[in-house]
Amino acid sequence: MSDADSSADELVDIDFGHDGLVPAVAQDAETGEVLMLAFADREAVERTIESGTAHYYSRSREELWQKGKSSGHTQEIEEIRVDCDADAVLYIVEQEGGACHTGYHSCFHRKVTEGRPGAGDENTLPVETETVGEKVFDPDAVYDGEE
Amino acid sequence: MSDADSSADELVDIDFGHDGLVPAVAQDAETGEVLMLAFADREAVERTIESGTAHYYSRSREELWQKGKSSGHTQEIEEIRVDCDADAVLYIVEQEGGACHTGYHSCFHRKVTEGRPGAGDENTLPVETETVGEKVFDPDAVYDGEE
Repeated sequence: MSDADSSADELVDIDFGHDGLVPAVAQDAETGEVLMLAFADREAVERTIESGTAHYYSRSREELWQKGKSSGHTQEIEEIRVDCDADAVLYIVEQEGGACHTGYHSCFHRKVTEGRPGAGDENTLPVETETVGEKVFDPDAVYDGEE
Repeated sequence: MSDADSSADELVDIDFGHDGLVPAVAQDAETGEVLMLAFADREAVERTIESGTAHYYSRSREELWQKGKSSGHTQEIEEIRVDCDADAVLYIVEQEGGACHTGYHSCFHRKVTEGRPGAGDENTLPVETETVGEKVFDPDAVYDGEE
């Protein structure tokens, strides 16, 4: 394949859609592990670019959220990527401590071992899982109710 | 840290929320590269577990979508992970061809080099990008209007 234009600069409009949010994936710069998926609004992405530390928008608390502000488990930005449709972002980060509020390095620490097709109600799907991720801190010692 | 229970089996209810969808991240099993982000409904996750090949739900076409069905660029599932809140899934896959309909191996092939804070309207954020990903196929030769 020709990739003569592969290093071309391009102005991209990140598109926050009808709800003002894009999914934001965080990936460990060192290990490549996918750490978490959250959402970001325009302000969160701006702050992330400006500050070099990952910001998200908390849908439950309805506010800007600097990852690790209270826990110390910050994510220093190494690179930000946008996808082809410019409606999702990837933060490639140096993760301090663990990304997951349960104490694991990654929020994706459970592997599906078996499905239960047909079980559950319309909006849930029960699956058997096995915990495969690494626990790196004790959440009780770190959090007092907020991330 | 104690991780005595780290291999415990656990029944998890994947939660498809109010819109019936979870974000689904695909990651290359070999390189660790984050390939794409799409959405999956209950049926898509069930089919993915049963068939061993990645399925999503296309919000624009409003239908179940087997990745690569027409292009041949399928994603064979190596592992499925669920996150701590059970409202996002990670497909760890062997990617046939390229994941991105534009011909790149990953949809996240553009790196943000500079923000333009304050520019754009309420729902967009213009950013300067540089293409860093690898182009692996010619989309004109593969797609005739659908993925």
